[in-house]
Amino acid sequence: MEYTAIRPQRGLPLYLQLKQMIQTQIASGVMHPGDRVPSERELSDRFGMSRMTARQALLELVREGFLYREQGRGTFVAHRKVNQGLLGVTSFTDDMRARGVEPASRGLEQRLELADQEARDHLELDLGAMVVRLKRLRLGDGRPMALEEAVLPADLVPGLEEHSLDGDFSLYAWLRERNIFFQRARQTLEAVLANGEQAELLGVLVGAPLLLLERQSYGQDGQPLEFVRAHYRADRFKFFVDLTQV
Amino acid sequence: MEYTAIRPQRGLPLYLQLKQMIQTQIASGVMHPGDRVPSERELSDRFGMSRMTARQALLELVREGFLYREQGRGTFVAHRKVNQGLLGVTSFTDDMRARGVEPASRGLEQRLELADQEARDHLELDLGAMVVRLKRLRLGDGRPMALEEAVLPADLVPGLEEHSLDGDFSLYAWLRERNIFFQRARQTLEAVLANGEQAELLGVLVGAPLLLLERQSYGQDGQPLEFVRAHYRADRFKFFVDLTQV
Repeated sequence: MEYTAIRPQRGLPLYLQLKQMIQTQIASGVMHPGDRVPSERELSDRFGMSRMTARQALLELVREGFLYREQGRGTFVAHRKVNQGLLGVTSFTDDMRARGVEPASRGLEQRLELADQEARDHLELDLGAMVVRLKRLRLGDGRPMALEEAVLPADLVPGLEEHSLDGDFSLYAWLRERNIFFQRARQTLEAVLANGEQAELLGVLVGAPLLLLERQSYGQDGQPLEFVRAHYRADRFKFFVDLTQV
Repeated sequence: MEYTAIRPQRGLPLYLQLKQMIQTQIASGVMHPGDRVPSERELSDRFGMSRMTARQALLELVREGFLYREQGRGTFVAHRKVNQGLLGVTSFTDDMRARGVEPASRGLEQRLELADQEARDHLELDLGAMVVRLKRLRLGDGRPMALEEAVLPADLVPGLEEHSLDGDFSLYAWLRERNIFFQRARQTLEAVLANGEQAELLGVLVGAPLLLLERQSYGQDGQPLEFVRAHYRADRFKFFVDLTQV
């Protein structure tokens, strides 16, 4: 970070001037993704402002996604977000590869179980039906990206509960090999805050913003094929849709 | 809220049992959107658990969007989110009406100004070009829903800077009347946390989750028509896309 003088400007609070200076340094490439930002104390010493003022500038930049914090390590310049298309049932594995990012997964849970009420609702199953539940941590270049939980009707995917989820396993490739294809899907996006378990697995602070993507997919026979709930780190992901002839 | 006994279950922490009890009461309709949830003290008295345990259950439910807090008032059951389509350049006014919600706006800023670097980049304008900037608070049935900032090339929209933004003014209706139509657009969605100004205008706590929607629209001649940046309350909105033949 380069230190340029901050001269009091009429009408512009000091914390906003500091905030803009840091934003300019990021935009102009003086500061790079992953660079450590000076601490509140360093900033207050350097610019002769109160620590509260420095804190306010850093906090707003964290909230707005320009900086991120790691517990006990400090504050850093955020990486460019992966800009993922929403138009298409996206395979994390394929998407990351297309971006030159090495995808990997770590299996967290994997089991054949009696469908609970929520699974029966989403998959249109009767009481007593079985499902396969997969919970995976998704990594990109070794860094945690998303927590994904998928539930599928057990009838459709025999043996899936015993397949290794680690490494570069792609559920969609596995389904394609068995001639299982999606016909339609609905994806919804929400913003939520990380709870304790999510924060620990994703390496963010409790209360950090996450994008919650839910996907309900249907097969060629119109029957529900999977229900997916995935929490993406909001500092690493955004989603887009392109519209034509609107 | 109905109080049912919480009996210690092997392997399930007490706060998770309380959390599940509240979720069940919401799902089953015993508690309704807008209902006040008992305070940490009331819950700890009633169930003989520590206030810390009650706090943890409430906090996670707030983070996950089942409950929301209002400064100085308490904790409440969240309202069903508006589920807005992302496939289409959505007019807030039309969308709300289609849901039986009365839309309204309050103009916050409105001016003709020299385009800054960001506006020139988005609208492909030359140095010295003018833009119209509109900043509005969007309301649904009188409640704050979103903060929206739109920037348009001044050449395209003469007089817009003087039009009242309050009440049921619809920018898209205004454009249609002037035979200005969109040909394509890109919309992106991110999750961010509310800063001080956003929190105050939207009536949420600083650090509450917001959905940031950015839209870059192009007219029939392929030229950029508007750039919009809107912050939606994450407890009141989610976005969906429907996909077919994926």
